[in-house]
Amino acid sequence: MANDKFVEKITSREDDFAKWYTDVVKEAKLCDYSSVKGCLNYLPNGYAIWENIQKNLDQRFKETGVRNVQLPMVIPESLLQKEKDHIEGFAPEVAWVTEGGGEKLEEKCCIRPTSETLFCDVWKNEVKSYRDLPLVWNQWCSVFRWEKTTRPFLRSREFLWQEGHTIHATHEEAEKRTINMWNIYKDFFEQELAIPVVTGRKTESEKFAGAEATYTVEAMMHDGKSLQSATSHFFGSGFPDAFDIKYLDKNNKLHSCYETSWGLSTRTIGAIIMVHGDDSGLVLPPRIAPIQARIIPIAQHKEGVLEKAQELLQKLKDINIRCDLDDTDKTPGFKYSEQEMLGIPIRIEIGPRDIEQNEIIVVRRTDRQKITVKIDELETRIKEILESIQNDMYQNAKSFLDHHIFEATTMEEFKTIVEKEIGFVKAAWCGNSECEDQVKADTNGFGSRCIDESKLLSDKCICCGKEAKHNVIWGKSY
Amino acid sequence: MANDKFVEKITSREDDFAKWYTDVVKEAKLCDYSSVKGCLNYLPNGYAIWENIQKNLDQRFKETGVRNVQLPMVIPESLLQKEKDHIEGFAPEVAWVTEGGGEKLEEKCCIRPTSETLFCDVWKNEVKSYRDLPLVWNQWCSVFRWEKTTRPFLRSREFLWQEGHTIHATHEEAEKRTINMWNIYKDFFEQELAIPVVTGRKTESEKFAGAEATYTVEAMMHDGKSLQSATSHFFGSGFPDAFDIKYLDKNNKLHSCYETSWGLSTRTIGAIIMVHGDDSGLVLPPRIAPIQARIIPIAQHKEGVLEKAQELLQKLKDINIRCDLDDTDKTPGFKYSEQEMLGIPIRIEIGPRDIEQNEIIVVRRTDRQKITVKIDELETRIKEILESIQNDMYQNAKSFLDHHIFEATTMEEFKTIVEKEIGFVKAAWCGNSECEDQVKADTNGFGSRCIDESKLLSDKCICCGKEAKHNVIWGKSY
Repeated sequence: MANDKFVEKITSREDDFAKWYTDVVKEAKLCDYSSVKGCLNYLPNGYAIWENIQKNLDQRFKETGVRNVQLPMVIPESLLQKEKDHIEGFAPEVAWVTEGGGEKLEEKCCIRPTSETLFCDVWKNEVKSYRDLPLVWNQWCSVFRWEKTTRPFLRSREFLWQEGHTIHATHEEAEKRTINMWNIYKDFFEQELAIPVVTGRKTESEKFAGAEATYTVEAMMHDGKSLQSATSHFFGSGFPDAFDIKYLDKNNKLHSCYETSWGLSTRTIGAIIMVHGDDSGLVLPPRIAPIQARIIPIAQHKEGVLEKAQELLQKLKDINIRCDLDDTDKTPGFKYSEQEMLGIPIRIEIGPRDIEQNEIIVVRRTDRQKITVKIDELETRIKEILESIQNDMYQNAKSFLDHHIFEATTMEEFKTIVEKEIGFVKAAWCGNSECEDQVKADTNGFGSRCIDESKLLSDKCICCGKEAKHNVIWGKSY
Repeated sequence: MANDKFVEKITSREDDFAKWYTDVVKEAKLCDYSSVKGCLNYLPNGYAIWENIQKNLDQRFKETGVRNVQLPMVIPESLLQKEKDHIEGFAPEVAWVTEGGGEKLEEKCCIRPTSETLFCDVWKNEVKSYRDLPLVWNQWCSVFRWEKTTRPFLRSREFLWQEGHTIHATHEEAEKRTINMWNIYKDFFEQELAIPVVTGRKTESEKFAGAEATYTVEAMMHDGKSLQSATSHFFGSGFPDAFDIKYLDKNNKLHSCYETSWGLSTRTIGAIIMVHGDDSGLVLPPRIAPIQARIIPIAQHKEGVLEKAQELLQKLKDINIRCDLDDTDKTPGFKYSEQEMLGIPIRIEIGPRDIEQNEIIVVRRTDRQKITVKIDELETRIKEILESIQNDMYQNAKSFLDHHIFEATTMEEFKTIVEKEIGFVKAAWCGNSECEDQVKADTNGFGSRCIDESKLLSDKCICCGKEAKHNVIWGKSY
């Protein structure tokens, strides 16, 4: 096949998953390492995926009353220090600005690693009365954390994300918002990205620095490891109290406020790659794919072929299919493998014979299944095919996830699973963080991903044998 | 009137334009000063305007083949230094990161003041052959410049913008792209923001650090001063040569590349305020207004009023009017002045009598003209009214601009105009930067805004009397 040249560049998924991943990122030109140490260049193919994620999520947020803002990218040291747990969590990994405008600064500032403190700083002026609440804000921005080891999309010093921050008059309302945003993430992953997820509360030792509770969305990658994909935090009154943000109720009585924050980052692109990708490259779910269909003309030098291809392109654009036409002078084989590498959900082949028959060949990226479509039925059929690809992708990923969650009631069982299988293990736990650490040490890195509130698998902790409190989903993670 | 309380908060435009401006920014809650020195908090009302600007411009860019990317927010010192003129222009005003992850950095990095060097750094790997060209990229981000004095939206240490960067095989193609983007800005200002502009090339001393030519879009504020609102730069080969970016043509011969960059920032929001605003607050052009219509019920406690208002709201949403309903317990007078302060183009008043008559009262923000609209004709009429407001706003601003551009052929004339009038002065110039400085010194700050290529007003330079090369538009500027 003419496309070998292109495809042979990537490592097989089974041979070396990590290498396969970086090969896909590179060959699909999603991002690359900047010469700025530890930072990424988000290239057009990768950034276009992020733009679609933004558009979709932003609309979901706004439907629940979220308003976007933009706060500064730097935080003075004194501001970062206002909440004790928070500064302890972030201080070691920040970058400090110490000079500006040719002078040494009186107070150094860090590039924001997250913006809880900045939102509180605005709110201490905005919030006076119950009439000012709630404030439900979000910002799309990048943050900076001084990571030692980096991997494209998964871990880099600078990454793109959204961080929502909200402040409420009551504990109950803030908790409801935390759960609401968590559900939006879950739904977004399943509906738009075709990625089934495991969801639950984080244990004490895994929760966000300064939060009372952290709710997580975890996705299983093709190598069985978990990617923490989105989190929603309930802060209680810790932050607002530290910043002295109080409100007067209708009776002029002063009260504490309650906060939440919630975020999803460009890690999500890593999840899409590692859940759906295959040995031919990226596979994008149609709902999020920047290009949903690529038209590849066959024997394009023959009269009428390019004209017909152009006509098709216009027809598809008219029904809001995101599509393009590859009319370069590359061979069709090369074009096919390029379209596959980029993960474009369908390609449409059209040549002289097809034109005669008034039909096209649609090839599904997921399984290369070829479907002959009458041009008269183009509009409905293409939409159906894209929808069926989206569903199949979800079902495949769901089936993979379901087959890779194991249950253990003894450490022996747990260890046997870990030796033989990839995936997650569900096991009961006493709630003690020492047991959590011990399990991780004994199982070659299966940490607690989240608490699972379903019926206890055992009344004894898998580790110490004392009374179990919850099931926990254990797994390796990125 | 019940709305006095709200309106009296702002200074009159004629009394103190600068104070009026900051009053509007504050009372309309567009942005405020952060406790991070010199930085702004872009609050929901202000950021929503920016989001609409982004959406509109981004679509215009993409229609011409622009693709978005995101490069790092920091630049190592050695990279910033690669192009001589560029570093000279920016070094004094950058902020330096010198510590990260608890250690002093081997090489310090600045927070990007602009990203020409970062784009070149990516392109030196991407561009090898003529097949790789052109690359037409853009990024929406914030940049950081260590300004000493700051004003909301007009000048702040961190500001939001888009910076487009492109690289081409030929001088001609790059120049065409420079002009093309310049025209998009011009059209965007006039069509979407209802702001007429003066456009032209910048003089040598006013052009961008490292550019061969800078093309500018200048808008006249209500106080007669100019706001440089968008610029498009042609770089020639300076940057790519400094970064050793060359391409092989079809015959395997090595060639220089040609670059452009172009940008528009949150200053644009300042322009909208200072061109259209009045003593009741902000006035937003309907095409860019986050909320185009606000429904204010009269006697909303009476039966059926709120229901009818809700029904109207839904009808307007169904035809894609961005609208909301103020059903709070404030008085109608207070609601009116709030809607006026926020610059919402129309308010819709509906009370029991209107419902009986099956009509509503539409009040135009620009001139408070009241229009009775039959509910049956709602859909077409509201669209017509919004369109007519958009046109009127442009015509008013155009008439203001036209009446405030004066012509001078002698320095005496120039000085007389400057004493008596606000606005711009058009006068011939020899091309010498010393004369440019002299004019500014002699006219209380009328610097060259741009070169005007229309027929020479005089064959002699307004300053030295030697042979004139071009007309120049002179004006004070923000």
